[in-house]
Amino acid sequence: MYRPEIKVLDCTIRDGGLINEHLFEDKFVRAVYKAVVAAGVDYIELGYRASEKYFSSDKYGKAKFCSEDFLRKVTEGIESNTKISAMVDIGRVDPEDIPEKKDSVVDMMRVACYVKDIDKAIDLVNHCAEKGYETTVNIMAISTALTPDLDEGLAQLAECPVNAVYIVDSFGALFSEQIHFLVQEYKKYLHPKGKEVGIHCHNNQQLGFANTIEAIRKGANYLDATIFGIGRAAGNCPLELLLAFLKNPKFKLDPILEVIEEEFLPLRDQIEWGYIIPHMITGILNMHPRSAMALRASHDKDKYTKFYRGLVNDGELT
Amino acid sequence: MYRPEIKVLDCTIRDGGLINEHLFEDKFVRAVYKAVVAAGVDYIELGYRASEKYFSSDKYGKAKFCSEDFLRKVTEGIESNTKISAMVDIGRVDPEDIPEKKDSVVDMMRVACYVKDIDKAIDLVNHCAEKGYETTVNIMAISTALTPDLDEGLAQLAECPVNAVYIVDSFGALFSEQIHFLVQEYKKYLHPKGKEVGIHCHNNQQLGFANTIEAIRKGANYLDATIFGIGRAAGNCPLELLLAFLKNPKFKLDPILEVIEEEFLPLRDQIEWGYIIPHMITGILNMHPRSAMALRASHDKDKYTKFYRGLVNDGELT
Repeated sequence: MYRPEIKVLDCTIRDGGLINEHLFEDKFVRAVYKAVVAAGVDYIELGYRASEKYFSSDKYGKAKFCSEDFLRKVTEGIESNTKISAMVDIGRVDPEDIPEKKDSVVDMMRVACYVKDIDKAIDLVNHCAEKGYETTVNIMAISTALTPDLDEGLAQLAECPVNAVYIVDSFGALFSEQIHFLVQEYKKYLHPKGKEVGIHCHNNQQLGFANTIEAIRKGANYLDATIFGIGRAAGNCPLELLLAFLKNPKFKLDPILEVIEEEFLPLRDQIEWGYIIPHMITGILNMHPRSAMALRASHDKDKYTKFYRGLVNDGELT
Repeated sequence: MYRPEIKVLDCTIRDGGLINEHLFEDKFVRAVYKAVVAAGVDYIELGYRASEKYFSSDKYGKAKFCSEDFLRKVTEGIESNTKISAMVDIGRVDPEDIPEKKDSVVDMMRVACYVKDIDKAIDLVNHCAEKGYETTVNIMAISTALTPDLDEGLAQLAECPVNAVYIVDSFGALFSEQIHFLVQEYKKYLHPKGKEVGIHCHNNQQLGFANTIEAIRKGANYLDATIFGIGRAAGNCPLELLLAFLKNPKFKLDPILEVIEEEFLPLRDQIEWGYIIPHMITGILNMHPRSAMALRASHDKDKYTKFYRGLVNDGELT
């Protein structure tokens, strides 16, 4: 039986854009929005809300900045019950650039941070909540967080106006028992304050979908996924698998299959994501995917053994 | 900490051969054997032991028949602690064609069957055990088996000389809680008689590796995997992920990465396996992959929505 509290968030454009500097055509973003809305998904994250003073709009696409103009253009005329989310990174957005909710099509601001920056994340949450937005905090690289540090951060988050706090397995390194532990840990602090636990998995070890299910089993109610698993490096939990798994009849699979067929097959000939051995290697070593991404952009892209030996014997692990 | 009872079985050639009628070159089979041996894997399954009276050797490759000549040719001169396995399908092997163990390089015969054929499988197990082989029974399409039928079969298997009985998720349809249930069910009958539980997963829902881990957690000790996840349709649990997960220091990852680099990347340009939407669709519908394989061989190979609608609305599900 399904839990009505479960909210699915599609972050296809936001996380997928990390592969191509968010240089999607408006037509593509609109097709994704239309499919996600038709599938009955609760939230769609259409990009980052970075400030143009920190990033050049010559180099990055519109989904990096999520201007109101852009968001209106890609969503207008499509009848929708899906809320719109944007991600804000600490230090990459000027809080003054964030409009009042009443002047924005964005419903929810998600603040991404590492454990060490939870204080800064709370500042930004307070700011966004005051302006009228729903908020989440997404704690990245959780597989490298020490439990006492995490506990301290969760205790603080429980006292702020955030709606949900996410477990973000940025490195795709976690196994089911670790997911179980983390959900329990988050719940201990957040549930007494009426806040929800979220899960965002990467697929380096082909565990993105599996770990999302394990988080659901333990009580996570905010679930991130992307169409066809698109996302940085190995990508994310595939939305099509998640919707097929969830029993809530409000979710429809057909629109997602259709947009994969029409938009994602051609895209995959242009940009790369998924189960690729260098990404698997950084996953099993619990490392940031940057070394694997650099390898894939080099002439040695398929020199797996040398890459693995290099990481195990050399610098990055010591 | 690792469990010394765990046995990993590589079935790259046997299950991978279902994609290409086992038409591998000897050189490729030998490279796989060499890598699997160097990786410290316990068993390698080099094909089916089908009788030539049932299949034409013009159409099928040597790994379909696993003659002693073939097996000696691809293994000779390679120092090895890895035992050799071959699969026998009921009705596709003449028991009289199976030599005495002392005249064979095969160590283990694995009998594949459906729940309804467990009696026949036990006959073949008795025959192979008498000839001196280790044996397993691999119960296919387990996601469609009714529990009372399965229980009856497991009770009989517990009384025969079989060494291990496998959960085979042929359709890649199972989730972790179902894996937990099945392992407990198998253990209930098999452990009191000193027999082990095995797990063989398909990857239609990207759960091949995850479900193998879940089976390990509940006590399965015979684990099937294939290099780079090669196997029919969506393929299997990837051996490289499984070896990286298992803590036993006898397992080495490097030889597997090396053979992927050298042999599997070129092979993947020729034959298809992995997470492909039609295979995902048969997985979520708990169906045999044959309709998806037919689609992939047709001009409509990427017509996902029509394929899904067809299966849901039409014949096969009723």
